[in-house]
Amino acid sequence: MQLLQDTIQKIKKPDYSLAQEAQKRLDNLTKPQGSLGRLEEIAKHMIVVTGNLWPQLKNKVIFTMAADHGVTDEGVSAYPKEVTAQMVYNFIGGGAGINVLSKHVGARVVVVDIGMAVDLKPDPKLLVKKINYGTKNMAKGPAMSKEEAIASIEAGIEVFENEYGKGIDIVGTGDMGIGNSTSSAAIASILTGKSVEEIAGRGTGLDDAGLSKKIAVIKKALKINVPQPTDGLDVLAKVGGFEIGGLTGVILAAAARKVPVVIDGFISTAAALIAYTLKPDAKEYMIAAHCSQEKGHRLMLAHMGLKPLLDLDMRLGEGTGSAIGMGIIEASVKILTEMATFQGAGVSERNDAKKILL
Amino acid sequence: MQLLQDTIQKIKKPDYSLAQEAQKRLDNLTKPQGSLGRLEEIAKHMIVVTGNLWPQLKNKVIFTMAADHGVTDEGVSAYPKEVTAQMVYNFIGGGAGINVLSKHVGARVVVVDIGMAVDLKPDPKLLVKKINYGTKNMAKGPAMSKEEAIASIEAGIEVFENEYGKGIDIVGTGDMGIGNSTSSAAIASILTGKSVEEIAGRGTGLDDAGLSKKIAVIKKALKINVPQPTDGLDVLAKVGGFEIGGLTGVILAAAARKVPVVIDGFISTAAALIAYTLKPDAKEYMIAAHCSQEKGHRLMLAHMGLKPLLDLDMRLGEGTGSAIGMGIIEASVKILTEMATFQGAGVSERNDAKKILL
Repeated sequence: MQLLQDTIQKIKKPDYSLAQEAQKRLDNLTKPQGSLGRLEEIAKHMIVVTGNLWPQLKNKVIFTMAADHGVTDEGVSAYPKEVTAQMVYNFIGGGAGINVLSKHVGARVVVVDIGMAVDLKPDPKLLVKKINYGTKNMAKGPAMSKEEAIASIEAGIEVFENEYGKGIDIVGTGDMGIGNSTSSAAIASILTGKSVEEIAGRGTGLDDAGLSKKIAVIKKALKINVPQPTDGLDVLAKVGGFEIGGLTGVILAAAARKVPVVIDGFISTAAALIAYTLKPDAKEYMIAAHCSQEKGHRLMLAHMGLKPLLDLDMRLGEGTGSAIGMGIIEASVKILTEMATFQGAGVSERNDAKKILL
Repeated sequence: MQLLQDTIQKIKKPDYSLAQEAQKRLDNLTKPQGSLGRLEEIAKHMIVVTGNLWPQLKNKVIFTMAADHGVTDEGVSAYPKEVTAQMVYNFIGGGAGINVLSKHVGARVVVVDIGMAVDLKPDPKLLVKKINYGTKNMAKGPAMSKEEAIASIEAGIEVFENEYGKGIDIVGTGDMGIGNSTSSAAIASILTGKSVEEIAGRGTGLDDAGLSKKIAVIKKALKINVPQPTDGLDVLAKVGGFEIGGLTGVILAAAARKVPVVIDGFISTAAALIAYTLKPDAKEYMIAAHCSQEKGHRLMLAHMGLKPLLDLDMRLGEGTGSAIGMGIIEASVKILTEMATFQGAGVSERNDAKKILL
């Protein structure tokens, strides 16, 4: 608990006075003011978050955390739960969506077993921080103990801190865990106050009957466990997952270090909601990569006041949205650091033909 | 006229039968079907357009065409017209938004003077294909002659063909020309049938009074010239610009060569509308990079049935939206060519636990 408390304590609101200096620099670049739209907003945000007037995104890291969910016993997913482990082998082998997309944007992926139901063959590409062999079935009682909830968040903090030592300029979140959209929907419903029907979606591809069953299971889990919406740890313990806790830890640790953190889709945003509940200021360090096709995602982002960067109907998870988002964020930072100024390039500013030097 | 006619003749509908094979490959990759959303759509589109089941985007080229507009005499822009030349020097110097963003995605930029009001100092980085020293003021008569309209399109075709010889896998469009959002709005109003008020926007940053004046000038130009909506050449000649004609040529030439063409913002889309009017099948080769903040852009895209990839409130032009879009398109192609299949990775498909090999 000490590590979690210390980390939360370290999170402060960023220094927004830097926004003015950032704006001045953006307005002096050879383009009409504001004409690069959200790229300029993001560039400004990067300066504010990092406290660095010349930010760079050399070291990009995506944490993809994997765990299993006891609630899969209820038949809430279109895929068998063994797929969690198979996909983690795929991550290690480099053949998954997250491998391809993170390579495309020049990010390294850190794959973590934080609570898979099985032990994989040891591999240098897999970090093992297992809290337990999957959660318990939340439809029958709490998914994990309060101690496990804390341990999962602290494991995320430790994983982040370990990588931080190697250099991190920006972080992305990613998840793998059959059943975790059920857990995330439960978290989101409690923390946003929206109904389960408004939040729960088809996950990896449920049909109508499957979705109805999933909604019923979530409602049952909420009724049995009664998670307290003001207590992020209670929500995580009762209806969460180990990968969700781990990502909460990554987000809190990034915020404590003033490292911008790119939030992936539905599951990562459930983790972000828990981080936000534990420490609202953590939100200032988040960038929502995209709006997932998963039903309630938009509501979850709106609850925190986050505006997604992309809307590409993605719903894979793994950190794939974070990767694509990072490519855009890096572009925005390069605008700030590589573009010429009006003076430097001898370009006239608006309504001012006097400076023309042809 | 011969080159234009030949090019139009070569444009055929792509072979959509390949879509089925593309879909099969996408569905066999280690992810829930369709879970990469628009990335999968784009990947499929790339296969169909190129006719290549293993497309690659090694050679990415953005054509940024610059020209001046006589209509600036009416005071329709927030910037003095000399900025066209100053910005082209900036392109050559590598300090503009398009330089930074095209470098970010690994695209080369081809800068073309296709009708600037002045002659720049010769530079190997500037291609000169000047049709005339800027257009005439369309508020007083046709912007150019029919011969000039044809010549500008054919110049675009030639520029494309020259680069095609060096290798092109995907093309992006870009523009520079103070006053060209006025010309583009006139084109768009005629070709979409929407009112000038619905289409015309603030360009580089007009205030309310400036926008009202711009709308009045466009209406006057349309009233005086009476461009024929079914005749793309007539529209281009009467209210167009040389860079717009040049980009029309690039788009037609790309379609004729089965090269996907990424359409930038408002001005590029005016060029796309002319290409679409001259040969509707050209549309099949287009990808709309983004929805510009410029008012009528969404209507123009909708008129052709194009769905923008990004919505980042950008309105700079130069090809900056094309560049960002290309990064996403390249990601989609890599999904197709680099991801593992279910069989290859030993991952279970949905509802099928039998293939599990842990």
